[in-house]
Amino acid sequence: MTADALSHPDVATEPCLLTASVAAASIRSRRLGCEELLRSCLTRIEKRDGDIRARLHIEPERALRAAREIDKTPARHALHGLPWGVKDVFDTIDLPTTQNSAIYHGTQAGRDAPCVATVRHCGGLILGKTDTVEFAANGRKALTRNPHDLSRTPGGSSSGSAAAVADFHVPLAFGSQTIGSHLRPASFTGIYAFKPSWGAVSREGLKMNAGSMDTIGWYGRSAADLRLVASAFGFLAEDPPSARDIRGLRIGLCRTPSWSKIEPAGEATLLTTAARLAGAGAIVEDLLLPAAFEDLFQAYLDIYYSEGGRAFQPEWLAAPERLALPLREQAENRRGLTKARLREAYGVADRCRLLFDDLFGPDLDVVLTPSAPGEAPVGLENTGSSVFNGYWSILHAPCVGIPAGRGPGGMPVGVSLIGLRLDDMALLALAELLSPAIDEQEGRGTLAATWPSI
Amino acid sequence: MTADALSHPDVATEPCLLTASVAAASIRSRRLGCEELLRSCLTRIEKRDGDIRARLHIEPERALRAAREIDKTPARHALHGLPWGVKDVFDTIDLPTTQNSAIYHGTQAGRDAPCVATVRHCGGLILGKTDTVEFAANGRKALTRNPHDLSRTPGGSSSGSAAAVADFHVPLAFGSQTIGSHLRPASFTGIYAFKPSWGAVSREGLKMNAGSMDTIGWYGRSAADLRLVASAFGFLAEDPPSARDIRGLRIGLCRTPSWSKIEPAGEATLLTTAARLAGAGAIVEDLLLPAAFEDLFQAYLDIYYSEGGRAFQPEWLAAPERLALPLREQAENRRGLTKARLREAYGVADRCRLLFDDLFGPDLDVVLTPSAPGEAPVGLENTGSSVFNGYWSILHAPCVGIPAGRGPGGMPVGVSLIGLRLDDMALLALAELLSPAIDEQEGRGTLAATWPSI
Repeated sequence: MTADALSHPDVATEPCLLTASVAAASIRSRRLGCEELLRSCLTRIEKRDGDIRARLHIEPERALRAAREIDKTPARHALHGLPWGVKDVFDTIDLPTTQNSAIYHGTQAGRDAPCVATVRHCGGLILGKTDTVEFAANGRKALTRNPHDLSRTPGGSSSGSAAAVADFHVPLAFGSQTIGSHLRPASFTGIYAFKPSWGAVSREGLKMNAGSMDTIGWYGRSAADLRLVASAFGFLAEDPPSARDIRGLRIGLCRTPSWSKIEPAGEATLLTTAARLAGAGAIVEDLLLPAAFEDLFQAYLDIYYSEGGRAFQPEWLAAPERLALPLREQAENRRGLTKARLREAYGVADRCRLLFDDLFGPDLDVVLTPSAPGEAPVGLENTGSSVFNGYWSILHAPCVGIPAGRGPGGMPVGVSLIGLRLDDMALLALAELLSPAIDEQEGRGTLAATWPSI
Repeated sequence: MTADALSHPDVATEPCLLTASVAAASIRSRRLGCEELLRSCLTRIEKRDGDIRARLHIEPERALRAAREIDKTPARHALHGLPWGVKDVFDTIDLPTTQNSAIYHGTQAGRDAPCVATVRHCGGLILGKTDTVEFAANGRKALTRNPHDLSRTPGGSSSGSAAAVADFHVPLAFGSQTIGSHLRPASFTGIYAFKPSWGAVSREGLKMNAGSMDTIGWYGRSAADLRLVASAFGFLAEDPPSARDIRGLRIGLCRTPSWSKIEPAGEATLLTTAARLAGAGAIVEDLLLPAAFEDLFQAYLDIYYSEGGRAFQPEWLAAPERLALPLREQAENRRGLTKARLREAYGVADRCRLLFDDLFGPDLDVVLTPSAPGEAPVGLENTGSSVFNGYWSILHAPCVGIPAGRGPGGMPVGVSLIGLRLDDMALLALAELLSPAIDEQEGRGTLAATWPSI
């Protein structure tokens, strides 16, 4: 199969391999039905998920019934007929929501999380719930393995959603991010990720972690996929994306105050990307963050530990022994964080947010920065480091993750593009403009080598 | 009945008249049982709620069974045995959560909102759900009437919870505030209210409105009641309240940039309160907010309309005709708010938060400000103005509402004390210290005149 076949699918193409935007075009032109696409996904899951373990809960029969209904219904949005994975911290009215916590085993929510409801309204098909680190926080790990190397983590906490999209189980999936739970898994599994500006998409219906940073996000296998989903959320879709020429675009290469944590694969990928973008005509210059940002890392960690500790209070009261030790310690404030220190942390965050907004303008269109230190670590207990993600989470800035290279272990390594807060559609348009220069395999998925075996 | 009888209750006292903290002491010393207290509350509700209409849903038999269980269980917290009203935007596992919206008629949540779970864990009894303005936002009004004058609003959106506490249906109730939904009803019904610092108590399990401001709060009939509840929330209780002498305390009298909206009753109450506090030895001085605060009113309104509009997107997609017109218009962004303007609003909020934090120190211990322009308006459609509340909501500062006087219509008028963000326990301790000088009827409720008729 050639890349061309995937961009212009014909009946010979295995539908689960299509990107969301290509599948959507096929559905729109009636060359593909939701049921056919779903059956292909189910076959892929059947074949692969014993190894990958991305799913926590799917109900194939229910999904097939829903697919037939969708095929009978006139499309009202480009998401019509596309199957979704949903991280198991999002409430769903028809499937249990367990948070990967023994406390919520089999718990059934009374309504869909608003973002899930929006996808259903647009004709999307909720295929199943994906494995997650407990409460999308510092708890027990997902059982999910990295599709590129089963001995490695897919990253966390959105482990199952990232692996499911990377391994062609579903074209799209919801994840969530408090510090780095959404962008990091995308980097480790070689897919595309979008984390909107804080508050731009309702995060209601998800277990709360740290409210100052909690954000929902979605995964796809191309930049176009990310924008397709954004068009379903009214607030994001209000602004037409600005069409730009890559030439003259001002890109700030930001090593962040965490640069000492970069690994050779992360550094090489970032610098290669910068060189490619410069080669394509962009003006890439080092972006030095103001001095206040030196305090931002500790500030967001303090906010994370403190807000998260409060979020887990009811579970800690009800069944402390069924809460992972780090979450218990968080609920008990074992770090001894004082209110004064937390207030200072909020102050640092407020200040840096104002400073970051001011960086954008004639001298800066978008920030280029690592998505992770390097390749996915070996083992499932360590889901990797979020040191390069948290800054943008606490700044409330929109982020796009793009696959950009390979490390020495043959594993994917990504980069992040960061935009001005609330300029989400402009960032997504820029990602679409820049991704062909960044990702040589765009739209084919980084697992292309395994296609013949599907 | 004398005030002394209420402070030192004997068997002759009608238990529903007791403040939460006095009832808690009686329960602790086994002079009062949960069932006995509940029966008194149910009798009061039976007699009064046909007029007041505070409740949306109660199940007396279920509550009585729960009360008998609580009476058999050893107390682990001072909240043990106290009945609660819960605003019907909070999820409860045993009672429907309707949001006063036709869309959610009869909806049953899969778990308790964390704050409700915390109260249950402490032995509190969830007696019922109270009426609310639709989604605690700009929607259809509660049917609840003001216990002091049935022709007037109790304020909104926490209408039912405020009226239920004011009219002795329950000693305690949960409300919530985005702009002014918690403090204003307390002022209109003559009760005590606490709105914690933003994020200090998990707001999970409530319908989201504007995430930057949404906060849960609680009502009681004394400052001690408010602190009693705070002690159940670990994060708040971590810091011992600072014991202070009223003499030498620095109180900033803040008229806010909305002062042109004050009514004679509001002004008289504020100035009388200031004079009383000065008479008790406090140093009361005018507090002028920095110039940046001139933009804060419009900024928080912009944030409110925009974030709220996104919160109601799923309902707007699913059943726009069953959404109140103002919410529909919000979801459709009829005000035409741009991203640039919203970003500017966030910037103003971030800046003012830093400036407000800096005001506290040797020259300022607490802020004294109106809770509402004046008395509760006549009619149920207009729940009154929140112009004096929103500043503190967007600043994330803790607020206590205290009954402080009467207007020309004989209706209660309150004042607010505002603290430094995250210094919640210090503010509650100050409220306890200052309230005897502010509220001449403290602990007896402003409906004292109606007692003989109970």
